Amino acid sequence: MSERFHLATPPVAGQAALSGDEARHLVRVLRAKVGDRVVLFDGAGSRWLAEITAINRDRVELRTEPPITEAIPPGAAFALAVALPKGERQQWMVEKLTELGVARLVPLITTRGVALPTAAACARLERTVIEACKQCGRDRLMVIDEPATVGDALRRQPAGTSLLIADPAGETAAPAATAGPVLVLVGPEGGFTAEEIAAAEGAGARRVALARHVLRIETAAIAAAARFF
Amino acid sequence: MSERFHLATPPVAGQAALSGDEARHLVRVLRAKVGDRVVLFDGAGSRWLAEITAINRDRVELRTEPPITEAIPPGAAFALAVALPKGERQQWMVEKLTELGVARLVPLITTRGVALPTAAACARLERTVIEACKQCGRDRLMVIDEPATVGDALRRQPAGTSLLIADPAGETAAPAATAGPVLVLVGPEGGFTAEEIAAAEGAGARRVALARHVLRIETAAIAAAARFF
Repeated sequence: MSERFHLATPPVAGQAALSGDEARHLVRVLRAKVGDRVVLFDGAGSRWLAEITAINRDRVELRTEPPITEAIPPGAAFALAVALPKGERQQWMVEKLTELGVARLVPLITTRGVALPTAAACARLERTVIEACKQCGRDRLMVIDEPATVGDALRRQPAGTSLLIADPAGETAAPAATAGPVLVLVGPEGGFTAEEIAAAEGAGARRVALARHVLRIETAAIAAAARFF
Repeated sequence: MSERFHLATPPVAGQAALSGDEARHLVRVLRAKVGDRVVLFDGAGSRWLAEITAINRDRVELRTEPPITEAIPPGAAFALAVALPKGERQQWMVEKLTELGVARLVPLITTRGVALPTAAACARLERTVIEACKQCGRDRLMVIDEPATVGDALRRQPAGTSLLIADPAGETAAPAATAGPVLVLVGPEGGFTAEEIAAAEGAGARRVALARHVLRIETAAIAAAARFF
């Protein structure tokens, strides 16, 4: 795969430009020259083969070929609502969920959660999503949604969404795959409270156990994406 | 869950001792005192509730209750043969595979692999397995097997093992769960060579695609454990 770069704004009339980190990486790290070819993607599902036409200070101009649009995958639109883990485990989780094709991540605000989904934290995660998309060949960014409580996360789902909540005391058999959208909720280190589980079950969520042992937050999220997506 | 400590040798007549890192962690970090209670596990499936009876320099003595033996999980004995990723991704992968209950990890020697499964690397991974078992409540260690080529890894399997090889060009549908042992092979960053895939197919392995995008080694290994175990 060619080197991939994220476009902040789509090309106009076959002309595009990279600036900021993307331009610096291309010019200073990869030492690109006029005439070199790269792949640009907009994060909304389109990519372009492009040729560098000019290199200025912190800005690279490119001529683009017609776009190639990534098909929306058949089957479920898969979303996860997760109480964010701490430190670098947060970035690690987001990298993996992006690679695995998760459509949307809702940072969960829970009673026992410790890592707050601040605006700065969510912005960092969006940068991680872009880096993972560059690396894994994904053209449509995983959306980092507005932080939400369990109740809000459930209320915001489209009608007909299959709801699952990770709970060590839940069913161990994998539910059958469904055709429509799926949302899996994953709680904080101390687990969901009885009230949070009751709210989810009240909204129709099934409790599922993802493994026999205690999973860290990021392991549970990745396992849910691999099993139910 | 109480704090868990790994026993290098099983208790004799209700007496056990911790030394080295485990003793230091208990005394210096957790500031344990005579009379405190902890959980000991041997990594072979047994654990003991224990009470500290003496604290010496770098050695802690304990009185143990009768052992509790972790049942061998029903269903498949699940093994992964993986071309090790580089750097801390190696530890991260082993932590996650341990949490998810993988029975055995074979470090794969492949044509395109870059991280060599040296004795020192495998020893580090064994330490990671113990730490993950302490954290996730698992009493039976994940075995870090002898490094092997694709051919050797396949030849060493018990008869009747279901063989899968991760390959972006393989089937996307998940194979049906099987009752017997399962081995999944995951290749290096540059992928398996045509010869390695042919060797696996010749031995009866099915090629499976784990996701639509390019997965890093550790993501593929974790996804395989979550999907096929």
